[in-house]
Amino acid sequence: MGRVTVRRRVLQVRDGVRGQAPDLLAAEEPMEIRVNGRPLTVTMRTPGHDFELAAGFLVSEGVVHAAPDVAGIRYCAGATAEGLNTYNVVDVVLGAGVTPPDASLERNFYTTSSCGLCGKASLDAVRTTAAWSVEDDPLRVHAAVVTSLPDRLREAQRVFESTGGLHAAGLFTADGELLCVREDVGRHNAVDKVIGHALIEGMLPARGTVLMVSGRASFELVQKAVMAGIPMLAAVSAPSSLAAELAAEAGLTLVGFLRGESMNIYAGPDRVFADAASLAQ
Amino acid sequence: MGRVTVRRRVLQVRDGVRGQAPDLLAAEEPMEIRVNGRPLTVTMRTPGHDFELAAGFLVSEGVVHAAPDVAGIRYCAGATAEGLNTYNVVDVVLGAGVTPPDASLERNFYTTSSCGLCGKASLDAVRTTAAWSVEDDPLRVHAAVVTSLPDRLREAQRVFESTGGLHAAGLFTADGELLCVREDVGRHNAVDKVIGHALIEGMLPARGTVLMVSGRASFELVQKAVMAGIPMLAAVSAPSSLAAELAAEAGLTLVGFLRGESMNIYAGPDRVFADAASLAQ
Repeated sequence: MGRVTVRRRVLQVRDGVRGQAPDLLAAEEPMEIRVNGRPLTVTMRTPGHDFELAAGFLVSEGVVHAAPDVAGIRYCAGATAEGLNTYNVVDVVLGAGVTPPDASLERNFYTTSSCGLCGKASLDAVRTTAAWSVEDDPLRVHAAVVTSLPDRLREAQRVFESTGGLHAAGLFTADGELLCVREDVGRHNAVDKVIGHALIEGMLPARGTVLMVSGRASFELVQKAVMAGIPMLAAVSAPSSLAAELAAEAGLTLVGFLRGESMNIYAGPDRVFADAASLAQ
Repeated sequence: MGRVTVRRRVLQVRDGVRGQAPDLLAAEEPMEIRVNGRPLTVTMRTPGHDFELAAGFLVSEGVVHAAPDVAGIRYCAGATAEGLNTYNVVDVVLGAGVTPPDASLERNFYTTSSCGLCGKASLDAVRTTAAWSVEDDPLRVHAAVVTSLPDRLREAQRVFESTGGLHAAGLFTADGELLCVREDVGRHNAVDKVIGHALIEGMLPARGTVLMVSGRASFELVQKAVMAGIPMLAAVSAPSSLAAELAAEAGLTLVGFLRGESMNIYAGPDRVFADAASLAQ
């Protein structure tokens, strides 16, 4: 975990005054994900929780759905010409009977559709690829718990304070109890790490949980939540149009602009309740 | 351009009070980039400036370097089964003698290296792929101009104000004059659109310019600047470790945490100058 941050000398300019100072930067390194020994993709990530990242990526892509689908995960030794282990190449060995992804095809839901990449086709593709539905999840979360999540996530972030450069994703119970928090320079990676953790711990589908992210809610983040069976996604910032559309189609509760005592609910508002008193105001 | 934002009804919760309201969301739709008719990649983007996005992506990947490298760009008609044009599939026809990218290979600099994905290999790959060097660019920018860039970028953003959901990238002269601003739900896309604009306008390599981005500075954003011949990248937020490393190796000036009158310079500080008076403070 020593590589989560990197120390570097920097020239600071403060109101015209210059000075050299050491600065902590969020580490970023490429990681190759292999499946059964075959290269699948390369992602730029913050080192740490690499096995979770690989597992979560495969959940998001619809390759694996539960812990038994993964027989093992390991760093590839001899990844350099000199035979050194860089800890930047991770191989996932699939369980018996699990179909590996076709690495020769574009690994993208949209290209599995014959449609000309309209948003509708994307939504259809996610619906048909997901192993379970979040639509009937009976999760209910008090509005006060929802508005407490950003602070809880920030408190759980270990690295952000020192670098200012990391996205965070946290998985919470309906009572606001933190189940898992992960950080990464890439927000998709932070979510994949959380989902990979849930897979490895046998928690998928992650019914009754809330995924909270530090940034915005894109289509792909909603997609990842749906693929992991998480019924609610909350984001500090704005969602995109397609994120809201997919959430509504999939029956996922999507909260955005979660700041202070305020939030916008873009889909599935029935899962957020308040006391009768505050509702009457 | 009507699709840059999408209007959607949203449930607003403000201090316990609920109310329905229309909300503007940043549009997000998938776009497929084809080269000479062959599918290359799919990116989730905000519609608008699609031809620039396609062209800029190809600059970043090292496929094209100057305007004559692109013979034409068009939307593919008949992209759906019903023959409708979705305006989500863009084909770039390369100029004579330009080698198309190999779509069967992982389109990633790292896999072109035999090394096991160490950061060093990534840096080497960018250095050898870039068509020109930014190292000897004589650009000098006054510190006061640098600190004015975030406000200038924000003022130029047309959509952010209404949606809060868009990243921005702006290309500026050394005097702080705005050459081009583009917005997108994806920060890489915003930069690709700016670079694509520069390519189409015959401005590459974009010597003597500063690229300003609204978010963080990742390895890939530094890489894109280098590939476009832009000698300076400034970001509102933090850079990653590999971003700072590549900037130093490539001779690019990298500014981060650009807020108020303050900034951190992670590489190439000599391009930022101040008046003698303020230096003496």
